Amino acid sequence: MTTPRFPTGALDIARAFAQHEFTSRELIEATLSRIDAHDAKVNAFTALTAGRALADADRLDALRAQGAKLPPLAGVPFAVKNLFDIEGVTTLAGSRVLADRAPASADSTLVRQMREHGAILVGALNMDEFAYGFTTENSHVGVCRNPHDLTRIAGGSSGGSAAAVAAGFVPLTLGTDTNGSVRVPASLCGVFGVKPTYGRLSRHGTYPFVASIDHMGAFARSVDDLAATYDALQYLDPYDPACSARALEPVSASTLGRPLRVARLGGYFDDNAGVDAREMALTASRALNVTETVDFADAAAARGAAFLITAAEGGQLHMPTLRTRYDEHEPLSRDRLISGALLPAAWVLQAQRVRAVLRKRMLELFERYDVLVAPATPVVAPRIGDEFMDVNGQRLAMRPNLGLLTQPISCLGLPVVAVPMRTASGLPLAVQLIAPPWREDLAFDAARRLEQAQLAWCPPAPCFDAATTQTVSSGND
Amino acid sequence: MTTPRFPTGALDIARAFAQHEFTSRELIEATLSRIDAHDAKVNAFTALTAGRALADADRLDALRAQGAKLPPLAGVPFAVKNLFDIEGVTTLAGSRVLADRAPASADSTLVRQMREHGAILVGALNMDEFAYGFTTENSHVGVCRNPHDLTRIAGGSSGGSAAAVAAGFVPLTLGTDTNGSVRVPASLCGVFGVKPTYGRLSRHGTYPFVASIDHMGAFARSVDDLAATYDALQYLDPYDPACSARALEPVSASTLGRPLRVARLGGYFDDNAGVDAREMALTASRALNVTETVDFADAAAARGAAFLITAAEGGQLHMPTLRTRYDEHEPLSRDRLISGALLPAAWVLQAQRVRAVLRKRMLELFERYDVLVAPATPVVAPRIGDEFMDVNGQRLAMRPNLGLLTQPISCLGLPVVAVPMRTASGLPLAVQLIAPPWREDLAFDAARRLEQAQLAWCPPAPCFDAATTQTVSSGND
Repeated sequence: MTTPRFPTGALDIARAFAQHEFTSRELIEATLSRIDAHDAKVNAFTALTAGRALADADRLDALRAQGAKLPPLAGVPFAVKNLFDIEGVTTLAGSRVLADRAPASADSTLVRQMREHGAILVGALNMDEFAYGFTTENSHVGVCRNPHDLTRIAGGSSGGSAAAVAAGFVPLTLGTDTNGSVRVPASLCGVFGVKPTYGRLSRHGTYPFVASIDHMGAFARSVDDLAATYDALQYLDPYDPACSARALEPVSASTLGRPLRVARLGGYFDDNAGVDAREMALTASRALNVTETVDFADAAAARGAAFLITAAEGGQLHMPTLRTRYDEHEPLSRDRLISGALLPAAWVLQAQRVRAVLRKRMLELFERYDVLVAPATPVVAPRIGDEFMDVNGQRLAMRPNLGLLTQPISCLGLPVVAVPMRTASGLPLAVQLIAPPWREDLAFDAARRLEQAQLAWCPPAPCFDAATTQTVSSGND
Repeated sequence: MTTPRFPTGALDIARAFAQHEFTSRELIEATLSRIDAHDAKVNAFTALTAGRALADADRLDALRAQGAKLPPLAGVPFAVKNLFDIEGVTTLAGSRVLADRAPASADSTLVRQMREHGAILVGALNMDEFAYGFTTENSHVGVCRNPHDLTRIAGGSSGGSAAAVAAGFVPLTLGTDTNGSVRVPASLCGVFGVKPTYGRLSRHGTYPFVASIDHMGAFARSVDDLAATYDALQYLDPYDPACSARALEPVSASTLGRPLRVARLGGYFDDNAGVDAREMALTASRALNVTETVDFADAAAARGAAFLITAAEGGQLHMPTLRTRYDEHEPLSRDRLISGALLPAAWVLQAQRVRAVLRKRMLELFERYDVLVAPATPVVAPRIGDEFMDVNGQRLAMRPNLGLLTQPISCLGLPVVAVPMRTASGLPLAVQLIAPPWREDLAFDAARRLEQAQLAWCPPAPCFDAATTQTVSSGND
C-alpha cells in the first residue's frame, strides 16, 4: 500500500512536496489508506480526520500552484493524542466518560501551531485513560500494540502517538508527558521524543491531568524532524497560565560546535535499570565523552513526590465522575485516583515542598554539567498483559514502575530529548538526554551527536505485509 | 515621658533629625524608655533590641556629623512582628514551640531594607501564634491590648505591629497578612496599613505560614509615611521564590492628578459588615466619587478557598511539632491546624482551582475600575475574650470571622491600603482600598484623597498618664 515515492521523514516530505514530486492530496490519501489498511493491527488511531486533512491538502496544493512560499512543514501529515482538542471532534482523553461531551469548538493551541506551519492533521491517537498509565492498555478502545512486535505494549500514556510514528503511519505526532508519557512510549517503540521544560509549550485546549506537572511533547523519526516540530510548537500563549513568557528559543538551526559537559546518572538510575538499559546508557555516555557518573540521590524522593501529586491532582480533577460514573472509569486507574483525592492534604503539600527543594539541588548539578544521561525505561517493551517485570532481580509491578526513570525528571520540570537506541535484545530502548530548564538546545545537541555517531536507532517501520506478528527482535525473550 | 521635641511621624522624624533638632541616640533612648514605661499596659513588644538600636543610632549620628547624605528614613525607629528574622534573636512567630531554636544568623530581607534606608530596629512584636488568628490573644506571652481601649483587642495576627504604632511607641512597624493580618489590626487600632500584591515584597527570612497566600506588609500613621516605608521595602529578592522580578514601582512621589474610577463593593461586603463599617465605607465612597456599587458574588467562595488552603498549608507546616509537642501549641489554633493537615487533598486542590478562576473574574472587574472600596472589619475592636460578635443580627464566632472582609481579597493576591476612619462609636475602623495587581499606586492615590478630605483618622496616641484604661471612645458600647 505504501508507495515508495513518498519519503518517510517529515522534512523530507516537506522538501519533496515543495519540489512538486507529488501533490499533498496524493500523500494524504496514501497516508489515510495506510492507516485504514494496517492500524487494525496496531490500534494507534482512535479517529481519523479525513475530511479536514484532504481539505487542508487541497489548500496546500493550491498554494503551491500559486507559487506562494510554503511553510516549513508543508504537507507533512501528523496526528495527536486524543486529549488535544480538534475542532468538531469530541476530546476523549482515552475515556468513555467523556464520550457524550460536545465536540471541541476550536483546535488546541499546538494543533493550530502545527497547521500554521503547514502540517496536516490526519487523526487522534490512543492513550491511557486520562493519561494515567504507562502501557496504553486502554479498556475502552483496546490496547495499543507495539508496531515492532504486536505481542508487546507500545508504552504510555502517549502510546498511540509513539506507535503511529514507529509504524510509519505518520512522521510526526504530539503527545503529553506528566511522569514519562512521551519518553516511555518513545523508548518502547524506538522513536525520538521531546518533553520540553515545564511551562514552555502551551497546554491550552488539551484535557488536563496534573496541572503542576503536565507537559506537552512530540515524537518523530529523526532529530531534525523533532527539532523542526518543537520549533513549530513554540508559542507564547496567554491562555495557558503556566506558559512562560520567555523568548522562544528555536533549536532547528543549532550546531554541534560547542563542547558539551555530559555526565551519566548512576545510583538510582543504575539500580532501577535492567542490563539492556544500563548497557545502552553506557554506550551513549561513551559517545558523549562522559567522564563522570553522578548519583542524584534525591531521585527516589522526587519520584515519590510526583506519585503523590499525580494521584491527588488527578483524583481531584476526576472526583465528580468517579462519584457518579465509577464503573465507566478505567479499572486500572480509578481506585488510584480515588485514593489520591483522599490523601491528607499535608502529604501532598509536603510533596510539593520536597519537589521545590529537589529542583534547587538539581539546578546545582547543572552548574557542572550541560546534559545528564539516563535510560528512559528500565526494560524494553514488555508483553501485553504482563503485570510484573524483572529489573536486576527485583520483581516490580509493571504499571506503576515503567516510569521509574522518567518520573523524577519531569517532576522537576527539566527538558529531555529521548533518543532510541538498539539493545542486545534486538528491541529499541531510549536514552534520556536531560538539560537544565530552558536549555532544550543542549539536549538536542547531544541527540544530534548520538545520531551522527550512528548510535540513534529508529527501527524501520514494519510493512505489515503478513497477517502474522511483525517483529524486529529475535523474538525469544 | 514622651518629650514634645520629638515628632511622631516617620518622615517628620527623618527631616527633624536631618536638621539636627536632636541626636539619633536621644530619640532612640526616648523611644526605648517610652516602651519600657508603658508597654506593660499594651503588651505590643515581645523583645527590645536596645543594644543594636543604640549602636545604629550612634552610627547615624556619626554619619550626620560627617555631613554625609542621610538615607530617607534616617533615625526613624521601627519594630517588626516577631516572625521576621533579626540577627542574634530567636524568631518565635508567637510560639513557645520555637523558643529553643537558635537565634537567627541574619536579618530578614525586609529588616535589612529598612536598615539600609536608615530606619532603626528597636524590637519584636506580639502576634497570634504562627500568624493563625485575628485577635493576638497570645496564650504564651499574653494578649496584646488595644492602645485606645485596653479592654479591647488590637486585632491580629499582626496585633503588636498595629498596637505599637497606635500607642505612639514607634511610627513604623512591619507585619504580615495572609488572610487579613495587616488590615484587621490596622482597622481595630486605627492606623494605616498596606498589604501589597502577592509576590511584591520579599518573605526571605520570615517564618512562613501559608506559602501560597503569605504577604508582607507595613503600618504607619500617615499615607506618606506608609508610602515611604513601602518604597523602602521593595527589593527584587532571588531568595523568595514567589518574589516577582517585575520592576519596582515607587509610590512615594505619586500625585493626585489622575481621575480614579472607584466602585464600592456591596453584596457580600454589605451583608457581612455592621452598621459602623457600612456607614464608613459609604462615607469613603462618597469622598472618592463612587457612582456604582458592585457585587463580587464570588467573595464567599474566595473566602472558603482561603480557609481551606490556610488550614491545610499551615497544618502541613506544623505537623511535626503538632505530633510531638501538641500541648505547647496555642489551644486556640492547634486543632484547626490538625484538621487542615488531614483535609482530603482533593478539597485543597479544588480550593486552589476556585481561587485561580475567581482571580480571573476579579481582574475582569478591574477593567472597569481602578479601586474598589470595602470595610476592613465587620465591627470595631471587640472586647478581649469575646467569643462572638453581632453583625446585622447574625451571631458570628469572633475568631474565624473577624477576617470576613479581608480574606477574599488577599486570597486573590490584590494590593490593599487600609485607611482608618472614625466611626459613630468613637472607635476607628479601616476601609480597604483595593487595586489591581501591581497597582499599589492606585490604592495609595485613593488613600491620599481620603487623607486630604480629612476623612482618614489615626486617633492620637494615648499618653498613658493614668493607670486606668485609656480610651478614645465614649465607652458605652
